[in-house]
Amino acid sequence: MKPANDTFLRALLRQPTPYTPIWLMRQAGRYLPEYNATRRRAGSFLGLAKSPQYATEVTLQPIERYPLDAAILFSDILTVPDAMGLGLHFVEGEGPKFARPVRTEDDVRALRAPEVEESLRYVTDAVRSIRKALDNRIPLIGFSGSPWTLACYMIEGGGSEDFRTVKAMLYQRPELLQQVLAVNVQAVTDYLNAQIRAGAQAVMIFDTWGGALTDAAYRSFSLASMAQVVAGVQREHDGERVPCIAFTKGGGQWLEAIAATGCDAVGVDWVVSLAQARARIGNRCAIQGNLDPMVLLAGAKATASEAIRVLEDFGRPNRVDGGTDGHVFNLGHGISQFTDPDVVDVLVETVHSHSRILRA
Amino acid sequence: MKPANDTFLRALLRQPTPYTPIWLMRQAGRYLPEYNATRRRAGSFLGLAKSPQYATEVTLQPIERYPLDAAILFSDILTVPDAMGLGLHFVEGEGPKFARPVRTEDDVRALRAPEVEESLRYVTDAVRSIRKALDNRIPLIGFSGSPWTLACYMIEGGGSEDFRTVKAMLYQRPELLQQVLAVNVQAVTDYLNAQIRAGAQAVMIFDTWGGALTDAAYRSFSLASMAQVVAGVQREHDGERVPCIAFTKGGGQWLEAIAATGCDAVGVDWVVSLAQARARIGNRCAIQGNLDPMVLLAGAKATASEAIRVLEDFGRPNRVDGGTDGHVFNLGHGISQFTDPDVVDVLVETVHSHSRILRA
Repeated sequence: MKPANDTFLRALLRQPTPYTPIWLMRQAGRYLPEYNATRRRAGSFLGLAKSPQYATEVTLQPIERYPLDAAILFSDILTVPDAMGLGLHFVEGEGPKFARPVRTEDDVRALRAPEVEESLRYVTDAVRSIRKALDNRIPLIGFSGSPWTLACYMIEGGGSEDFRTVKAMLYQRPELLQQVLAVNVQAVTDYLNAQIRAGAQAVMIFDTWGGALTDAAYRSFSLASMAQVVAGVQREHDGERVPCIAFTKGGGQWLEAIAATGCDAVGVDWVVSLAQARARIGNRCAIQGNLDPMVLLAGAKATASEAIRVLEDFGRPNRVDGGTDGHVFNLGHGISQFTDPDVVDVLVETVHSHSRILRA
Repeated sequence: MKPANDTFLRALLRQPTPYTPIWLMRQAGRYLPEYNATRRRAGSFLGLAKSPQYATEVTLQPIERYPLDAAILFSDILTVPDAMGLGLHFVEGEGPKFARPVRTEDDVRALRAPEVEESLRYVTDAVRSIRKALDNRIPLIGFSGSPWTLACYMIEGGGSEDFRTVKAMLYQRPELLQQVLAVNVQAVTDYLNAQIRAGAQAVMIFDTWGGALTDAAYRSFSLASMAQVVAGVQREHDGERVPCIAFTKGGGQWLEAIAATGCDAVGVDWVVSLAQARARIGNRCAIQGNLDPMVLLAGAKATASEAIRVLEDFGRPNRVDGGTDGHVFNLGHGISQFTDPDVVDVLVETVHSHSRILRA
C-alpha cells in the first residue's frame, strides 16, 4: 500500500510531484536532544542500533519534529561485517573497530555472507517495528554500506585516513580483494532484500569511500560490486516499486557510470553542481542531494538562501518528457552534530515552499 | 642559468623531453631515516623548518638518494599565517594549531600580509642555501599554500575534518572571508615572488582544501583567489621562465577552470584519470601527477606496474603540435611516512626507463 505521502517515492521514480521531497542523511542523530536522551538510556551506540525498540524510537524522532518526506532506518553500516563475526566494537573518540580484521588469505577464505534472517534479525525486526510506528504516513528507507566501503572497514579494522591496508591489498593482491567484495556483494544484496521483505519501501547504498580510489580502481572494485548489488536488489514488493539509490561520496566524476548501474537515483555530495549532474545523468535517473551540511551551522538565513540555490541549480522540473521531476532534496553528507534543530525547520519549510513556487 | 638537468622545467613549459621527469610531493620526509635523524637533531618540526641549514640538509637528502628531476624547498605551508602573528605551534598527535585564530571582524581588520623579506627571511635564506647546495644540478621548486587553504587553517585555528568554522563564515559572512582571502592573495604572491627572487626556479600553489567546497564556493573563494596569485607571480627571473603549478586536491571536476587561471601546469590527485585530464585540459597546460601514494606500500612490483599504468594513461607525448610532452610524474598527494625508501628507487627508475620506451 502506498504511503499517505508518497512524494519521495514518486520523485525517485521520476514521476511528477507537487513539491521537492526532502529527508536528511543521519536525520536521527546527535543534533537532536531527544536522540541523545535515548542513546543515554540505551547505554551505548550498539545498544541503540541493535534494539528494534530504541531504533524505532530514534527513527521516528525527526519525523515527529519536521514534515520530512521519508524516514530512514536507524542502524549502522557496520552491522553486516559484525554479523560476519569480525567483532565490532566502538572505542570512545576513535570510532568503530573490528577485533578480527580481514588481512590474510585464510581470513578471506573463512569469510561468509551472514544468514541475514538470523544474525541480522534485529534489523528486520526494527524495519517491521518502524513501519508499524510510521503507520504509512511516509515511506521508510532501508540501507547498507557498499561492498567496497564495508571492505575498507573490514580490512583496515576500523576507520582510516589513508586506507593503506586495504589499498595495499588492492594493489598487491587484487584477486584477494575481489573475493572479499564477492562475499560483500552477496551479504549486502541479501541484507537489502531482507529489509525490503520486512517493509523497507526504498533502499540506499552508501559508498562512503569510493571517492578515495583512482578512476581505474573505482570502476573495478567499488562500482562493479555496487552494480552487482543494484542488479540483485528486489525492485518490487507487495505490488509496489522499491526504488534503489546509489551514492558514492566524492563520486562526482563517475555520475554517468553510477547512473548506468541501473539504480533509480544517484546520490550526490555537495561538491557537485546539480545543474551539471542533471545534464550529465539526463533522464536515466533521479538525483538526490546536495546541500553542504555545514550550511546549517551558518544559521537560518544562510540555510534558506543556500537551499534555494540548490533547488534552482537543479532547475525547474521537466514537464516536457512526460512530466517528471526527479529531484530529492538532501544534504551532501550526514547532518552535523553541531546543527541547531531549529535551523532544520527552516530548511524543510524552505524546500517545500520554494519548490512549489518553482513548479507554479 | 639553466640547471644541468632541466627536464622538469621543459616538461612544465610543454617542450620536448627525452623522458618523463619525476619528483614526489613531500619527498623530504618521514619515510627517510636520514630525515628523521635530522629532525631529532633539530628538536622539533618548526626548528627544522625555520633553520635554513636544516632545511637545506633535508631538501638535499632525497636528491642524494634518487635521480629525481627536481628538488622542493623544505618548509611548511603555515609559515605565512605564522608570519602574520597567529602563533603557530604543533601539538603532538594533533598537528598544527594557531594560538590566535581569525574569527571576528576585528581579527580580520587587524590582518596584514607579512613583510616577507623580514619575517620570512628564514625561507628565502633557505632557498639561497639550497640553490647553492644543489649547484645547479636540478631545479628547485618553491611553494605556498593557496589563499583558501591558508584561510582554512587561520580561521579553524588548525586542521579540521569538516571545516565548520571557516564554512560558517563563508555562508554567513562571505564578504568577511573575501577580506581574509584578499590579504592571503597579497601574502602568497609576495611570498612566492620572494622565493623566486631568492632562486626558486618553479613555484607550486597547494590548494589542499579546495575540494571540500561546493562548485559555486570553489569558484568564488578558492579558484578566484588562486587565479589572482597566478596572475601576480613573477614568471621570469634571471632571463629564465619560472613555471607555476596550481594543484587543488580533490579538484578533478575543475581542471579546465584551473588551467584557465594561466598556470603552466595543473597538478592532479590520484582520483583523476590522466587520459581524461589531458583530453579536458588540451594543450593549454602541462599536467603533474598522479600515482596513488598508497601504491608504494604495496611493494616494488605493484609500484612498477601502477607507474607504467599512469604513464600510459597520460599516453604518448604529442609530437604533432610542436613536439611537446607536458607530463611531470608525481604522486597524487604527499608520500606516506610508511613508504619503504627502496620502493622509491624502483618508482624513479621505472618512470625514467618506461617513459623513454614510450618516446622510442
